[in-house]
Formats: sequence, C-alpha cells, structure tokens
Amino acid sequence: MSQVENVLAHVDANLEHSLSRLFDLLKIKSISTDPEFKDDCRMAAHWLADELTNIGIPSSVRDTSGHPMVVGHKTGEGKKGPHVLFYGHYDVQPVDPIELWHADPFEPKVVTRDDGTQMIVARGANDDKGQLMTFVEAMRAWMAVTGDLPINVTVFLEGEEESGSPSLEPFLEANKEELSQDVALVCDTNMWNRDTPAISIMLRGLVGEEITLKGPSKDLHSGMYGGAARNPLHVLSEMIAGLRDKNGHITLPGFYDDVPELPQEIKSMWDKLGFNTAEFLGEIGLKQAGGESDRSALEQIWSRPTCEVNGLWGGYTGAGFKTVIPAIAQAKISFRLVGNQNPDKIRSAFRAYMQEKCPADFELEFHPHGGDPALQIDINSPVLENGRKALADEWQKEAALVGSGGSIPVVGSFKDILNMDTMLIGFGLDEDQIHSPNEKYEMQSYHKGIRSWVRVLDELAK
Amino acid sequence: MSQVENVLAHVDANLEHSLSRLFDLLKIKSISTDPEFKDDCRMAAHWLADELTNIGIPSSVRDTSGHPMVVGHKTGEGKKGPHVLFYGHYDVQPVDPIELWHADPFEPKVVTRDDGTQMIVARGANDDKGQLMTFVEAMRAWMAVTGDLPINVTVFLEGEEESGSPSLEPFLEANKEELSQDVALVCDTNMWNRDTPAISIMLRGLVGEEITLKGPSKDLHSGMYGGAARNPLHVLSEMIAGLRDKNGHITLPGFYDDVPELPQEIKSMWDKLGFNTAEFLGEIGLKQAGGESDRSALEQIWSRPTCEVNGLWGGYTGAGFKTVIPAIAQAKISFRLVGNQNPDKIRSAFRAYMQEKCPADFELEFHPHGGDPALQIDINSPVLENGRKALADEWQKEAALVGSGGSIPVVGSFKDILNMDTMLIGFGLDEDQIHSPNEKYEMQSYHKGIRSWVRVLDELAK
Repeated sequence: MSQVENVLAHVDANLEHSLSRLFDLLKIKSISTDPEFKDDCRMAAHWLADELTNIGIPSSVRDTSGHPMVVGHKTGEGKKGPHVLFYGHYDVQPVDPIELWHADPFEPKVVTRDDGTQMIVARGANDDKGQLMTFVEAMRAWMAVTGDLPINVTVFLEGEEESGSPSLEPFLEANKEELSQDVALVCDTNMWNRDTPAISIMLRGLVGEEITLKGPSKDLHSGMYGGAARNPLHVLSEMIAGLRDKNGHITLPGFYDDVPELPQEIKSMWDKLGFNTAEFLGEIGLKQAGGESDRSALEQIWSRPTCEVNGLWGGYTGAGFKTVIPAIAQAKISFRLVGNQNPDKIRSAFRAYMQEKCPADFELEFHPHGGDPALQIDINSPVLENGRKALADEWQKEAALVGSGGSIPVVGSFKDILNMDTMLIGFGLDEDQIHSPNEKYEMQSYHKGIRSWVRVLDELAK
Repeated sequence: MSQVENVLAHVDANLEHSLSRLFDLLKIKSISTDPEFKDDCRMAAHWLADELTNIGIPSSVRDTSGHPMVVGHKTGEGKKGPHVLFYGHYDVQPVDPIELWHADPFEPKVVTRDDGTQMIVARGANDDKGQLMTFVEAMRAWMAVTGDLPINVTVFLEGEEESGSPSLEPFLEANKEELSQDVALVCDTNMWNRDTPAISIMLRGLVGEEITLKGPSKDLHSGMYGGAARNPLHVLSEMIAGLRDKNGHITLPGFYDDVPELPQEIKSMWDKLGFNTAEFLGEIGLKQAGGESDRSALEQIWSRPTCEVNGLWGGYTGAGFKTVIPAIAQAKISFRLVGNQNPDKIRSAFRAYMQEKCPADFELEFHPHGGDPALQIDINSPVLENGRKALADEWQKEAALVGSGGSIPVVGSFKDILNMDTMLIGFGLDEDQIHSPNEKYEMQSYHKGIRSWVRVLDELAK
C-alpha cells in the first residue's frame, strides 16, 4: 500500500471516532450572533485549539474584540508543494424556529434512511462544523500514520462568520505575515450533486447602491399638479427600466469591458453537467430565464454580471388609494460582478447614468453598500489541478468546476489583505438545510470528505 | 332702481346680520368624520333647515344612515329660467393640529388687516359654510325684497362631504325625481384671484388601479438566482416607464381618442389669465413642467389627461441592504381623464397594456379604485352665459373660465344619477387654508359672493 492508501485506511478504520469528535463539537452551542452564547463560542474555539494541538498541530485561541480566532501551524523544512491556509468557522446560526426541529439541534444524531444511507442531524452538522472537521480529521489521519503532514499547513478558524465577521479583516491586517500563505483552502461550499464533487472557481462580486430621488419639495395632489409636476416614481422607473435593454443586457457604458468570455473548456464542462434549467426555474415558480437572452441559465447565474432592483419604494403604499405625486422615490440597486469588473468603475458608471437621466430640477443622492470584486481561479493553476486529481480519485468522477452566484466575503478578504487565492472545496448538498431547522450533513459527505482532503494534501505535495 | 338693485341694496344694508348668521353656523362643530361630533352635525342640519324655512323656503332634515341631508324647495308656476338645484355641505374638516390655530376654530372672528381688508377666520369659514351661506343670504334678500325667488330653486345640503359622502349617491338614487332639476349650482370652488371671479368649466375625471405583479414563488437571493430569475421590480419599472413616451404623451392605444382639442376661445382666455408657470412650479420646488411637452402648464393641469404613479413598492425597503429578488412588486397608478374619455375604456386599455408586457410566467392582479369621467360644461350653454354676465356685472371683470385638475365627486354623481349638469361658482381664494389651521374667508368673498348670487338668480330668470 502506498502512503496515502495507508492514511485512507486509517480514516476508514477510525470513522466512528471521527464522528464522535464531530458530535462533541456539535454539542457546543456556539451561536455567534446571540450574546447569550458568548461563552459557548469561546468553548468551541478552545475545543478546536486543543484538538489541533493534540493532533500535533500547535494551535492557540487568539482574542479579538468579538469571538476569538483559532490559529495553528504545522510546518517543516524542505517540503514540496504550497504552504496552505485552511479556513473554516466554528460558529453556527441560531436555531429559530426551534419548534420545526424534530430533535434538539445541539444533540447530534445519525439518522439512517430506508436505503441504508445515513445523515448527521444537528445545527452546524454541515455549516461549518461538519465541513471543517473533514479537514481536521484528514490531518489527524496523516499525523497518526506518518507523523507529519505532506505539506505545510496553517489552520485559521473564526467564530463570527454567521454574524458578519466584524473581527476578520482587522485580524488579517494585524497578522498578515503569519497568515499570508501560498493558497487558502476553504471548506464551506457544496458538491454539484450527491455523486459529483465540485470546486468553485468563480464567485461573483457585488456593488450595492441606495438611491434617493428628490423631485417636488413636498407631496402634491395629483389633481392640482398632475401633468405639470414631474413624478419621481415615474422618473425612477424610467431610470431603472433603462438599465437593461430588451435582450437583458446592461446598458451602462463600459459595463462589459472587463467581463471575460467563458473559456470554451469551462463552457463544455458546464454543458455536460446536465443542469436542468426548467427544474431550477420550476422550483421558484418560473418558466423562462430572465437575464441576458443569449446566455444559458448557468452562465447567467455563475459567469455573467447582473443588475437587480432589491428594493423600490415611494408614494402611498397603504390600504385604499391616495392620489399623491410623491416628493421622493427611493431604490436599492445592486450589481453582481464577474471577471475583472472593478466595483468603483461600475459604481461610477451607474451614478453617471443616473445623473444623466435626472431632470435638471430633481436631485439624486447615492449611498454606497458594499463593493467587492469578483473572484476567479486560474483554471490552469497547479493547485486546482491537484484538487481535481484528488477529487476524481476519491469520487471516481471528475469534479465539476462551478461558479457561485453570491460572494463569500472571506475569499475577498484573503485576496485583498493577504493577496492569497482560494480553492473552494466542500462536501455539502443543496438540500442540507443550512441556516434552517433540521440541518444535516450526509455521512458520505463526512467520510468521503475526510478522504478527499487526505488525497488533496497528498496531491499538493507532488 | 331696478328690482335687482333693490335686492343688492338690501344685501348691503343687512351685511352685519348676514355675518352674524354665518357666525352662528360656524360655531357648530359639525366635523363629519369624527363620531364625537355626530350631534353637532345634526344641529347644523337643523339650523340650516330652520333658517331656510324662515326665509320662506320650506326645508326639512332628511335622515340617512350617516349624517342627515337638508332639502328645501321654493317653486312656483310660470317662472322663466331653469329650475336650479343648489348644493353645498355643512360639515367641516377636523381642526388638527389645533396648536397651530391662533384662536378657537369654532369661535369665528373678523380680522382686519392694515390695509382695511377683512377676513372671517374659523373652521368652515370658506369650506363650505361661508360659501353656501352666500347663496342662502342671496335668497334671503330676494325673498325679503320681492317675496319670491326669480327662478325655481331646490336647496340640497349634505353633511358628509369631508368624509367621503357615503350617503350621497344612495340619497340621490332614492330621491331622483325630487332632486333632478335643470342644472345644479355648486359653491365650493375658488376665484381666479382676489379680483377675478371664476367659473369652473372642466373637472378632470379619475381612474385608479392597484397592481400586484407576482413573479418568483418566493423571495430569492440575488446571488443564487440573479441573472436567471426575472425581477418583478424591474418588470414593473419597465411597464411604468413604457406608459409615457419621451414627450410625456401616454402610450396606451386609443388613450387620446376622446380627448378634445381645447376650443380656441378657451385657449385665448387662458393665455390672457397671466398664469405664471415659473411661479406655480417654483412654489413646489420645480423649474420645468414635466407633462406633455407640447402643452402649456395650464393645459397640462386643466385640460389634458395624465398618468401618475401614486405608489410603488417591493423588495427590501428597510435600513441597510438585502440582496433580494422579491417575489412581488406593487403599484398604485391613476389616470386623470378629460373630455369624453371613458373610465372603463381607459381601465381596459391600461390592463391590456400591462398584460401584454407581463412575462408569460408572471401573474398580474388588478384592483380598481375609482372610475369617474371628466366633466365639461358646454361653453355655449345659456346658463353659463347668465353666470358670466352676472359675475362680470358684480366684479366689473370677465369671469375666468377655468379648469380644475381634480374631480369634485358630487358633480359626477349629479351627472350620473340625476343626468344634471353643474355650474361651479365659488368665491374662495387659493390662500384660504381650507382643511388647514386658521382657515379664512375674505369679507369681500362673503359680501360680493352674496351679491353675485343675487345677480345670477336674476340673470337666470331672463
């Protein structure tokens, strides 16, 4: 048996223990958003630092003004491969509505289905305790069998992911040297489906803007003024309508300048994923994809930028009718960015467009919300190749290289502050009910997740 | 002295008494919208019925399910001229905010300005007690001097105008024969300015629609679905934007079919009114008229139809930002109608337009609010000529034939139910603060208002 096969065999032989340790972590009520559970969060951090240290990865609990971080290192001279930073979070979402849980969210249990498959049910079973423990247990197996890790590893765990990570960026800034490694590994994403592992290679960025359009100096009676007084709701509607053309393309000048065409290689892969657009839309009550008419639905949500009205309001919105011409109309509008689109440039183009459409006697106010660029992993990078090889070996199926329509802030922070790329590999399923009652994680996800990381560590050393 | 000159002299000689009677009426707290003042409303009705009866116009208080009506008749054989129905309302608006009144709203007083002009200050001084008493006192003078009225008159006063007139239409329906006369006179409008009387010859109609546009079956995360899921707020904005072209014309097919061109005679009159568009817009903080670009502002508010968004809402409208694609977008939209535009036809055209723009997998729901046609008085009618002659004689200035951008519902009800046209003459000023603290009525409005009606009654008999 090769070394990696020995380690994998160790994983299989000790799965019960791995599960029992996960259960210990799941029992800790580390709800970061609720001050009542502050001590539980700290307890989870200490539990993890102790486990890592016991494995042979010296780790410590590091205070912040919020919940603490856990940082550990296992490094040595002369190793091949990159020095990786593994990221996960030990905090979990609140459990409300508690009455919809079939059992205590903090009393984890294994449920066996009729077909023999099993799932781990508890708050955090997937997000992110189950996922992060796949990496911890993979390291444990390597340490147990070989006394070392194939590559240098820094472990970095936070406890505020579910409450906006207020301490994350200050901590990265303050510990740049210690945390800046060759590449980050993040285990907080899903598989393509039950049988197909996935690596997220694209995360869309985001620019948000809140707009206040001020017209008449006060609300007007539409009988007395209607026809002469311009209506801010009408003007704002025109502005919004003009943001996209009839083919769903966004009209801001230069908007697509930094949007790369999808490489043919990726496009072919996506075509083969068997994505069922009708089913995807059907689940949300729709029949037709609504974005750029010359793009597939997968491109629309993964690799194409968007413009969305997230909120719009003005005038009388109560019961009955009021014939008012309102003084003010407001909107919240956001753009999802891809490729090299620059948030500042997009924000400026948007504001310039709005100003141009603004009647001379109206006023526009802008309030920015968020501005994160998209993240895209070089599909030819050796790290990605190692990851794909490891996953294909474990799952006997090529990993899907997927996009993710939303942003994962930590990935942006790693890039901005540590100038570090991230490889996102996770073993969750879309159906895992994260953030909802009866959150679960497939036993297969846990077992083969550990095995996958064993292989990834092995491949990265090659 | 001619008969009418005798009557006018009587008015002048008895002005103090006329004023004192108005004060008696103003002291009654007939706030129709507040149940606390139910008895006061009834008291006002009885006060008026008694006064009319004492004058020689037999009148009675007629119960409804709300506040009572007052109906009186003074008719005789062989009179020339039309049988008129005079309409007014004895109820008043609430007095809030009471702290902004300089004195008790129900303790009327005469305030003399530095230049010697006087005003009557009280809730209802103008709207509508002062205005309706101009007609009552004109009748009193005719009766006192001649023992009769020059024409047949029915007086019809309601007590629910400020609370939506719920009993009006049922009462008209139930008393059609008694109330259907040749023409209605309504005294609830303003003069063009302090020196220029006015007759309202156009009232715009109204069609209101509330729209619910349903897209996805639930609110969606714009990261996961943005680009593929069509956004109801974007669609609704496009629908609204498309309702008007770049020249401010409404795009609904057939919308202008029943909109008459303004007769040159009226257009010339309006051109001579000296309407100051910059001032009109400046008072509401605007510089440019926003409606049909080929129309003057006066036309825009008096003789042209409009489309207004009165309310628009959907998505996240609270503090901060939420990257949601909402399931629903809603709007309240209304059209002001002119000429012969048919409310049902306009409503149908609007709904057809919206349905045509509605994506196949979206749903539209419509909820109607109001549907009143515009009212336009034949400018060649003898009644109008009589009115113009009387006002010109009294004010030594041609009456302005004006439009009114808003609807006056009673005029529509008279037309619909009694098939009766209305001549609107009133002596209020725009500055009279009706519905607001320190409502007032010019002493000149009261005095010359009474004199004006004396002359109108005389002219109508010719």
